[in-house]
Amino acid sequence: MLQGLMMDFPLTLTHLLTRLSTYYAKQRVTTKTHDGTHQYTYAEHGRRTAQLASALSQAGVQPGDRVATLGWNSYRHFELYFAIPCIGAVIHTVNFRLHPEQVVHLMNHAEDTIVFVDASIYPLIEKIRPLLPTVRRVIVMDDVGQGTPAGTEDYEAFLASGAGDFAWPTLDEQAAAGLCYTSGTTGNPKGCLYSHRSLVLHSLGVGLSGLALDERDQVLSIVPMFHVNAWGLPYGAGLMGYGLIFPGRFMQPQELVPFVMDTGVTFIGGVPTIMAGLLMGLTQAGVHPASIQNAIVGGSALSRNLLEGFEKGFGIPILQGWGMTETSPVATIGILRSHMLGWPEEDQIRQRLKQGPALPFVETRVVDEAGTVLPWDGKSAGELQVRGPWVISSYYNDPRSAESFQDGWFRTGDIANIDGDGYVQLVDRVKDMVKSGGEWISSVDLENTIMGHPQIAEAAVIAVAHPKWTERPLACVVATAPGLTRKDVLEYLKGKVADWWLPDDVVFLDAIPKTSVGKFDKKALRAQYQDWLTR
Amino acid sequence: MLQGLMMDFPLTLTHLLTRLSTYYAKQRVTTKTHDGTHQYTYAEHGRRTAQLASALSQAGVQPGDRVATLGWNSYRHFELYFAIPCIGAVIHTVNFRLHPEQVVHLMNHAEDTIVFVDASIYPLIEKIRPLLPTVRRVIVMDDVGQGTPAGTEDYEAFLASGAGDFAWPTLDEQAAAGLCYTSGTTGNPKGCLYSHRSLVLHSLGVGLSGLALDERDQVLSIVPMFHVNAWGLPYGAGLMGYGLIFPGRFMQPQELVPFVMDTGVTFIGGVPTIMAGLLMGLTQAGVHPASIQNAIVGGSALSRNLLEGFEKGFGIPILQGWGMTETSPVATIGILRSHMLGWPEEDQIRQRLKQGPALPFVETRVVDEAGTVLPWDGKSAGELQVRGPWVISSYYNDPRSAESFQDGWFRTGDIANIDGDGYVQLVDRVKDMVKSGGEWISSVDLENTIMGHPQIAEAAVIAVAHPKWTERPLACVVATAPGLTRKDVLEYLKGKVADWWLPDDVVFLDAIPKTSVGKFDKKALRAQYQDWLTR
Repeated sequence: MLQGLMMDFPLTLTHLLTRLSTYYAKQRVTTKTHDGTHQYTYAEHGRRTAQLASALSQAGVQPGDRVATLGWNSYRHFELYFAIPCIGAVIHTVNFRLHPEQVVHLMNHAEDTIVFVDASIYPLIEKIRPLLPTVRRVIVMDDVGQGTPAGTEDYEAFLASGAGDFAWPTLDEQAAAGLCYTSGTTGNPKGCLYSHRSLVLHSLGVGLSGLALDERDQVLSIVPMFHVNAWGLPYGAGLMGYGLIFPGRFMQPQELVPFVMDTGVTFIGGVPTIMAGLLMGLTQAGVHPASIQNAIVGGSALSRNLLEGFEKGFGIPILQGWGMTETSPVATIGILRSHMLGWPEEDQIRQRLKQGPALPFVETRVVDEAGTVLPWDGKSAGELQVRGPWVISSYYNDPRSAESFQDGWFRTGDIANIDGDGYVQLVDRVKDMVKSGGEWISSVDLENTIMGHPQIAEAAVIAVAHPKWTERPLACVVATAPGLTRKDVLEYLKGKVADWWLPDDVVFLDAIPKTSVGKFDKKALRAQYQDWLTR
Repeated sequence: MLQGLMMDFPLTLTHLLTRLSTYYAKQRVTTKTHDGTHQYTYAEHGRRTAQLASALSQAGVQPGDRVATLGWNSYRHFELYFAIPCIGAVIHTVNFRLHPEQVVHLMNHAEDTIVFVDASIYPLIEKIRPLLPTVRRVIVMDDVGQGTPAGTEDYEAFLASGAGDFAWPTLDEQAAAGLCYTSGTTGNPKGCLYSHRSLVLHSLGVGLSGLALDERDQVLSIVPMFHVNAWGLPYGAGLMGYGLIFPGRFMQPQELVPFVMDTGVTFIGGVPTIMAGLLMGLTQAGVHPASIQNAIVGGSALSRNLLEGFEKGFGIPILQGWGMTETSPVATIGILRSHMLGWPEEDQIRQRLKQGPALPFVETRVVDEAGTVLPWDGKSAGELQVRGPWVISSYYNDPRSAESFQDGWFRTGDIANIDGDGYVQLVDRVKDMVKSGGEWISSVDLENTIMGHPQIAEAAVIAVAHPKWTERPLACVVATAPGLTRKDVLEYLKGKVADWWLPDDVVFLDAIPKTSVGKFDKKALRAQYQDWLTR
């Protein structure tokens, strides 16, 4: 092979860190704290991150070592986001909302050596620490203002123990940089081990997805930093130079609303649940966040109510992204193409409720059960499969890897179609489809239709056992007005879905149970209502 | 090393080509031709490029083979831009404006196998063909409408000989994809051999430089496709999805103006000479191209006159990029940071006349003669050195490579300073500095100041021999009004530059001689005026 004669310049997070503290030295990082607002510049972030890296090296952290974080979104977590991978170690962002048994499992599976934990989360670590044999130090970030618990070290003291300057090592772009486990709705979580290259290219891809972020932007990352690299928003700052705004542990609408109003946010990213809370909070407070130009949701599907609530109520266009822990996570972003801007409004909304076209370097296809690749016709539904430089090639030390790949493509477990413009539309999770008399009913379609009812806040549809049809759909709904009946819901659905899709019953709940990352916990619902029709 | 567990997905131009014909299938490519305007979609571009690739394979083109193009900017050249590298061969874009002896030299140095040439350029190839022993086929793209000359093949017939479908091979991202020679103002041109990876990352970097191009844009590439990948604009379409507009060989103001007005251009990139012609043409025609939102110049420094001409005359903000054949070419783009937007207008203009901050993944430094890296203070001037994934690591088969590198950095041969925001400001070429009594005078600074005179169109300053000071500056100027004198010019300069910088004489010319890429040919000026003061 005739090779090009170009420099061997690795794509590493170190380069992004350096750009932050040189080209964007004056840009700000803003964090909500227990006693106000913390703010500093990327120049200061760079100085502290270098000192933190020095302290980590002195603490004996070796290349490839896993260092865990259990933290809310804050400037300290943002320092760890760079200091750990840029000395060659691996930042393992732990989802502390998982069941403690799962946290123990995955921290042992990762063999974490040092743990950084917010004081507000420390009780979890205190409880499970005897079960974590590989952990040799616990360092607490005080986000409460009550000092450091006994038997732990203080983050600021640890950082201060580092030298003022640090010579960043030259790293291989294929070196592991980050580790994140899936939320594991079935079985134990599986680990995804990201490389410097994959994280850098992921941020490049998000940057070129049409969001048009640049250094004029102030980006509020509501999506947790323990949740798949916070969608790459923290690392992307090193490319695009925008300011970062972190809410700390203050995620309730009454806390978020004044923070959003005070900080000049131009862009927000978050899961639909939190965004719906923010929408409600803004509406109730009667305030208008004029600085916000764009918002993106992901993690669960964007609902029409949320879309219209932000757009009609506040003039904020809201976009939808889709991805998985296995895809770093962003794989698609549903920005309308210019030729769609002349479409009737209804068609535009329908298109925007799709998950959207793949980012540069991500490839998508849908495949039927026989393994045939289906056409991009907006109808043919099959399993969605993806590949690209920020898609995993296997799980970390996990024998379950093999079943997740087909011919070099990652099997998402989602049922989807792709239209002629390349827009992916998720139909359902494979395991959430309702198989009624041999025909499939999409639980997601039913949910979205039900949630269009003005008096319904949330709806989850699950398959329950049926003596004749094997499975039939059951709708679990949360009403916003008293007196709503089963009949009201079914009447509303008539004509909007096929008659044989109509749920066999409607259950009214105070709230739909949620998983640790805010998705509907259908496993819990199925456990409770599995025999609802056959009792 | 603990490696990340991510897919091995190569960064190749093939992926960009595929995106063009899927996600951006409906987007248009528009070319000015001898008999009107040619337009097709990226879907059609994809079909023809695949057929062209098939024809190239059938013609025996092997991976690594160099295939030459001598062409204006057109849809056919754009097909070759992808078909050649995506079968694993190397597209060698020949600058046909070089002296024929140099063209012979570099085509033999490259060992080109097949040559694609526009009919309007064919006379050059006809003349030198006996001197090109490695060339086995010449294929003519008819841009004149008079058929194919004897002894050559027609491009359309060659393309039609390919099969309708073609299975693109999987390529290594390090494989050579493109070859471009420097313009060689001293000695023979040197070759830069780009890889798929470097071309892809270059386009990503340009995409994230703040230009904010997306699929709503129609990009007019005036910069020639034989000139360093046309600044990456053709390949970038595969990432950002914008339409491309090619002027063919019709680069005169009276041809460009109606084309710009008819095609809905939103973005223009070109060298200052051509852009100045366009500005003049628009002014004379009294038309206003309202669709243009942004323009960028590169290749030579942006002058204040050009900046103000576009901005005050037409409301078009004009940017400056800087780079070299050795840097693919774009290394910096001088977009203002948001904190500069509150500066006084004069300060903003001064900042915009700098070459700007480095793109993501490009690193810059200035180094003095002793090898000391100088601070980013906006004053300390030294040789500009760069590194990054789209900077060459050596020249192609050239023993002169070694002297161009220092500690892994490429030595640009430019004298520059870098300010606290990372903006590079070129002071001069090392070889164009005037060394007067041991002190250095910047010829570029003098030229820019002189060109601020309202009756001066062009100015080139060169060092000429002086018995006492060794060298002194001589100003060569083109006046736009008759009667302008040496005294007028020197009076104008007084107070604007240090007294000892004042040129010893002013020579009035009808035109400054230009190199093949439109830069001032100082070598020619020096040859003519070297002994002007000592005659």
